[in-house]
Amino acid sequence: MSLANDQRSIEATLWQRVADSLARQGMMNHLGVRLLQVGLGSVKLSLPYSDRVTQQQLGFHGGAMGALADIAAGYAALTVAPAEHEVTTVEYKINFLAAFSGGELQATGRVVRAGRRVIVASADVTHHAADGSINPCAVMQSTLMPVTKTY
Amino acid sequence: MSLANDQRSIEATLWQRVADSLARQGMMNHLGVRLLQVGLGSVKLSLPYSDRVTQQQLGFHGGAMGALADIAAGYAALTVAPAEHEVTTVEYKINFLAAFSGGELQATGRVVRAGRRVIVASADVTHHAADGSINPCAVMQSTLMPVTKTY
Amino acid sequence: MSLANDQRSIEATLWQRVADSLARQGMMNHLGVRLLQVGLGSVKLSLPYSDRVTQQQLGFHGGAMGALADIAAGYAALTVAPAEHEVTTVEYKINFLAAFSGGELQATGRVVRAGRRVIVASADVTHHAADGSINPCAVMQSTLMPVTKTY
Amino acid sequence: MSLANDQRSIEATLWQRVADSLARQGMMNHLGVRLLQVGLGSVKLSLPYSDRVTQQQLGFHGGAMGALADIAAGYAALTVAPAEHEVTTVEYKINFLAAFSGGELQATGRVVRAGRRVIVASADVTHHAADGSINPCAVMQSTLMPVTKTY
Repeated sequence: MSLANDQRSIEATLWQRVADSLARQGMMNHLGVRLLQVGLGSVKLSLPYSDRVTQQQLGFHGGAMGALADIAAGYAALTVAPAEHEVTTVEYKINFLAAFSGGELQATGRVVRAGRRVIVASADVTHHAADGSINPCAVMQSTLMPVTKTY
Repeated sequence: MSLANDQRSIEATLWQRVADSLARQGMMNHLGVRLLQVGLGSVKLSLPYSDRVTQQQLGFHGGAMGALADIAAGYAALTVAPAEHEVTTVEYKINFLAAFSGGELQATGRVVRAGRRVIVASADVTHHAADGSINPCAVMQSTLMPVTKTY
Repeated sequence: MSLANDQRSIEATLWQRVADSLARQGMMNHLGVRLLQVGLGSVKLSLPYSDRVTQQQLGFHGGAMGALADIAAGYAALTVAPAEHEVTTVEYKINFLAAFSGGELQATGRVVRAGRRVIVASADVTHHAADGSINPCAVMQSTLMPVTKTY
Repeated sequence: MSLANDQRSIEATLWQRVADSLARQGMMNHLGVRLLQVGLGSVKLSLPYSDRVTQQQLGFHGGAMGALADIAAGYAALTVAPAEHEVTTVEYKINFLAAFSGGELQATGRVVRAGRRVIVASADVTHHAADGSINPCAVMQSTLMPVTKTY
């Protein structure tokens, strides 16, 4: 098998691992979150604008940005967690850079350091408007922990 | 008017200020968040368990805890913000202590320090089970900013 | 032995555990940090004002407040860590509330939740002026981990 | 004047702005912090190993890493702050990745977003051993505020 095929096979396995977990998340399904890209140590997800994610000024809710960034960082960590494990978020910190309405949010999570006991990850959230313009929305730094899978 | 009446009147005004803003938050209405208590520098809210707020193990989603704690801290800050202003979250940091399913979450936000340019607040989230038992779920420390109200 | 004596004995043991570790910290000795109080899940420390801890406006440096709050939270965690273990800081987040010069800082660390793998703690820093006035300076929320003692 | 000269002149001005402030920081001078590089929105500093910066296991103290990262992020923010202003740290969050002794730490601060009221910055800290090996130590995400210069 060629190296390129090998790489595709690894990414397909990682994609499946993340997609299986995401399918189980009632909140993310309810908000309409979709998986866009999965690599070793990196995951990208999207969240469409709707009245399910708005704050009082009709922009995307900070809680929605936080939830999206949290799972982007978490799933990035999942791609490097041991087999038969999943990850749990110990804590995260998020800075909000700007508010937007319409279009969709995209969050990219990246593993900063994968330890045996603790995984440190970051995520950034961008807004993608209907006219194609892209703007930074939020940045997150988070701490995760591999835990034995219980389902 | 007695002092007790005066106090009730202030709290009624604060309650209205927070309730008016909460009513405009599509995400919080969608998740079923309810206002429980409003005082000067302190707000308590609840979030019922449903498939709209679950993660992959069917516990309350970290994103739901984060969103609830964020608005508890934010509305606590709103009670001390200047008239004709609202507040925007600059950033927050949340530690998750334990996961629970069923029952409801309650978050209490408190102002730590109200400055002219920056308001620091904290929030704690507890789980309230159907059998009446109460357990700590998460703690948040956040930074907010008064901004001119635009609606 | 009376309960009161028992309590004093436990606190003496906890004090020794913290004091032994603090005595090994070159940086804290250099800055003049002193141990004020040790209880189960709670530790108080002080840092005197000097030109070793100033920033460009001659107030206490944020780095000094951060270091003091970090070890207050860390030593609070140490009082609940298993025997033959010490604790390491996974991460912390600190909000600065006000700047002061002269007098001393005091930081009180408290355990929020002690898990087997992760300990969550908080700390607050106050300024104590020569005239006896006390003012809040900073609040911290931190995550620690018990690790096997290597010395 | 050529564009290259122009660029050098801007960087010399930025360097001077940061160096003037750093020279006033008692704590940083005391710890032996040196300025390595200054660009628009980016600053690199170093901190040599000594008994002034150690923790109980003789590694670099988390408080020293935090202080170094804080000023790296802060001085990156200073390079984009309005004239006659300096910046003050509202809050920061730091994750520790590994502990090292000997050699020196280097911290690079970068502006993530420069707003009129709030500047968001990040910093990463690396360890540089005597044998030339470089390892990641810590990552920080911080919030700063431009304030009128008072000296």
